[in-house]
Amino acid sequence: MTAEIVAVGSELLGAQRVDTNSLYLTQKLNEIGVEVAAKTVVGDDKARLAAVIQQARTRTPLVILTGGLGPTEDDVTREAASAACGRELVFHQEILDGIEARFRSARRKMAAINRRQAFLLAGAEALANDRGTAPGQWLGEPAKTLILLPGPPHELKAIFEQECLPRLRRLVPERHIATRVLRVTGLPESDLDQRIAPIYTRYTNPVTTILAAPGDIQVHLRGQGSSESEARVVVEELSRQVEAELGDRVYSREGESLEEVAGQLLESHGATLAVAESCTGGMLAERLTAAPGSSKYFLGGWVTYHAEMKVRWLGVDPRTLDSCGVVSAEAAREMAEGARRLAASTLGLSITGAAGPAPDPHPGAAGPKPVGLVFLALASEEDCLVKERQFLGERERIRQQATQMALDLIRRRFLPGSGRE
Amino acid sequence: MTAEIVAVGSELLGAQRVDTNSLYLTQKLNEIGVEVAAKTVVGDDKARLAAVIQQARTRTPLVILTGGLGPTEDDVTREAASAACGRELVFHQEILDGIEARFRSARRKMAAINRRQAFLLAGAEALANDRGTAPGQWLGEPAKTLILLPGPPHELKAIFEQECLPRLRRLVPERHIATRVLRVTGLPESDLDQRIAPIYTRYTNPVTTILAAPGDIQVHLRGQGSSESEARVVVEELSRQVEAELGDRVYSREGESLEEVAGQLLESHGATLAVAESCTGGMLAERLTAAPGSSKYFLGGWVTYHAEMKVRWLGVDPRTLDSCGVVSAEAAREMAEGARRLAASTLGLSITGAAGPAPDPHPGAAGPKPVGLVFLALASEEDCLVKERQFLGERERIRQQATQMALDLIRRRFLPGSGRE
Repeated sequence: MTAEIVAVGSELLGAQRVDTNSLYLTQKLNEIGVEVAAKTVVGDDKARLAAVIQQARTRTPLVILTGGLGPTEDDVTREAASAACGRELVFHQEILDGIEARFRSARRKMAAINRRQAFLLAGAEALANDRGTAPGQWLGEPAKTLILLPGPPHELKAIFEQECLPRLRRLVPERHIATRVLRVTGLPESDLDQRIAPIYTRYTNPVTTILAAPGDIQVHLRGQGSSESEARVVVEELSRQVEAELGDRVYSREGESLEEVAGQLLESHGATLAVAESCTGGMLAERLTAAPGSSKYFLGGWVTYHAEMKVRWLGVDPRTLDSCGVVSAEAAREMAEGARRLAASTLGLSITGAAGPAPDPHPGAAGPKPVGLVFLALASEEDCLVKERQFLGERERIRQQATQMALDLIRRRFLPGSGRE
Repeated sequence: MTAEIVAVGSELLGAQRVDTNSLYLTQKLNEIGVEVAAKTVVGDDKARLAAVIQQARTRTPLVILTGGLGPTEDDVTREAASAACGRELVFHQEILDGIEARFRSARRKMAAINRRQAFLLAGAEALANDRGTAPGQWLGEPAKTLILLPGPPHELKAIFEQECLPRLRRLVPERHIATRVLRVTGLPESDLDQRIAPIYTRYTNPVTTILAAPGDIQVHLRGQGSSESEARVVVEELSRQVEAELGDRVYSREGESLEEVAGQLLESHGATLAVAESCTGGMLAERLTAAPGSSKYFLGGWVTYHAEMKVRWLGVDPRTLDSCGVVSAEAAREMAEGARRLAASTLGLSITGAAGPAPDPHPGAAGPKPVGLVFLALASEEDCLVKERQFLGERERIRQQATQMALDLIRRRFLPGSGRE
């Protein structure tokens, strides 16, 4: 079964606010196996809202309206729904009595305009609202359900849980949902899709969604089944094939971030880390320390932003910078080794690169490096691995991709078969 | 003129993500006098999307689609728009050449599926995308405009600003808008609103909007007038009163970030800075280096996450840590002074605090400090200013607020009347 959510209110059409009720509703609907097929936000405009409701009902069996049930002139949901469904609004004395009682118990007098809230669509059931004056409404027609809910989140949630979910469970065949979030690094989105589309497009259950951020792709698999274990089996079957195709580029299977994965590996191997950053300016350390408990493996780091600080703080040889430049394999290696030595840590990790937009300020005799060129180094007692990468995009994207790759160097060091396990 | 925004992507229909592109577009549209009448989110479902586009076009003169222009099978926006408008998709060799050149410059091979991105609606103009492979599209019909934009925000923003706004300005009757973005730190949102609401509620033009983030509040004023100078006068009248009420807590009047303001002050005073961070773990350095050109004043920093590194790298006296603890005024002072000495910079800035959720790992004889307690120090040749603050909230909020306050210490040092100008 699919649903559409229509949020009503001109205040939701500004540049600052988003409709968050729909996120709550989506979660609850997904849990009972209902997919949200579309979401709309409409202002307090009766004709436009009526058109939106009517169109939603032609294509989707369940339509949920939120907001616009207040007592004032700009609360147009009741009237728009009436026009869209061709059903009159009918006055209910018992609802008005309830609203009046609510005001009395707060020792306030009900305003005359609240009478508007005592009208229901002909044939609709009132959904009791114990936190506000406007009742919700449930209009159940064959193969077509319309729900009207008030906009304030605490009212909406209470009505949805107490009144709507029990009714929906009777409508919706029982479904169980299982999810898996594979996170992948080291592969551009289009390459990833080209490799796994032939696999996931064979399945409509699970549903596959791909989300891309700089240096980080999430593959969401959401499967349904008549039992929890059936749903899980459905997801695992597809997940196994996707994972086999992507191999060790998959860094997490439950949605953990790369800094969490790298941190867990450091901790479980009893290893400690120090970092030396140039173009990323602290972003690598910031990500490593975002996780509580990171002090168990992360000792600290240097942001040697100015070339001279690489020499003074980390012991990089000034002749290296003069001959190779600060953006070089040699500089990266000396930074990582310096960090490791000065922290007495198991590993030292460095990043140096040209994040732009200004040109490389210290090119050395080797000449200026192009924007996006980054060198990373991971030093241990036995060796020092150095990687070179040309990233694309703007300053912030280059910094994010470089940070991501640095974290991945840690992860890869601990992969089975890396020769270090 | 009114617009509808349609965001395409099944990932935007989950319980976690919201469409934020529409907020950006709404702001830009409002600035040229276009109101958003409805917003829709649709999944990667060609038939449903085509129906939504068609309906939006019947009621609204400007329809903007975002997302679904990628190279993969589930990128259906081009085809849905083609069906909705009754216009074929036409292949453009010059667009494909551009995409191929983009891949070549990154030393990568274009995947065959990227060819899909070289198709335009018949009669549409390509909107150049210098940050990604998918061009936008502009289909201008009499009294009906359809715009297709890619989903990644940095691509969408660049295309909208460079390609769409100039075209829209020719379509929209001229109305002048002036805006001012006051940014404020050091005041909770409710206190701020209590102080300025009596002022701004007297005006319906300008419209006032308040946005709060940890340690950072933005007051947006948007005024209209029949000429640019009239709009500006309207905004300035209100802005002057708000600024007078808030005094030196207003750190910028054009929306600049606090790291930009602090950086400009350092640069214009010929000052250099080094930082020493503990609980913020690199966040301060990361923000300072987010601005291009920061190497003019920012020399570098230390993330002395482990207590021992404060001693070994910055020369903090181990007896200080043993008696006062790492979260102490004394530790902050020695960190700031150490950073300044080792960098030979004009200023040294430090942060040490308990960001939680784990208790203070090195309390010293002074006993454990509560979560949220942070000490900051700003050292110069003449003196060292130390501040103590108890922040509220979770780890990430505490880190953000501490970073914000550290940047504000720099700004306040250069305020007229601070005795240092």
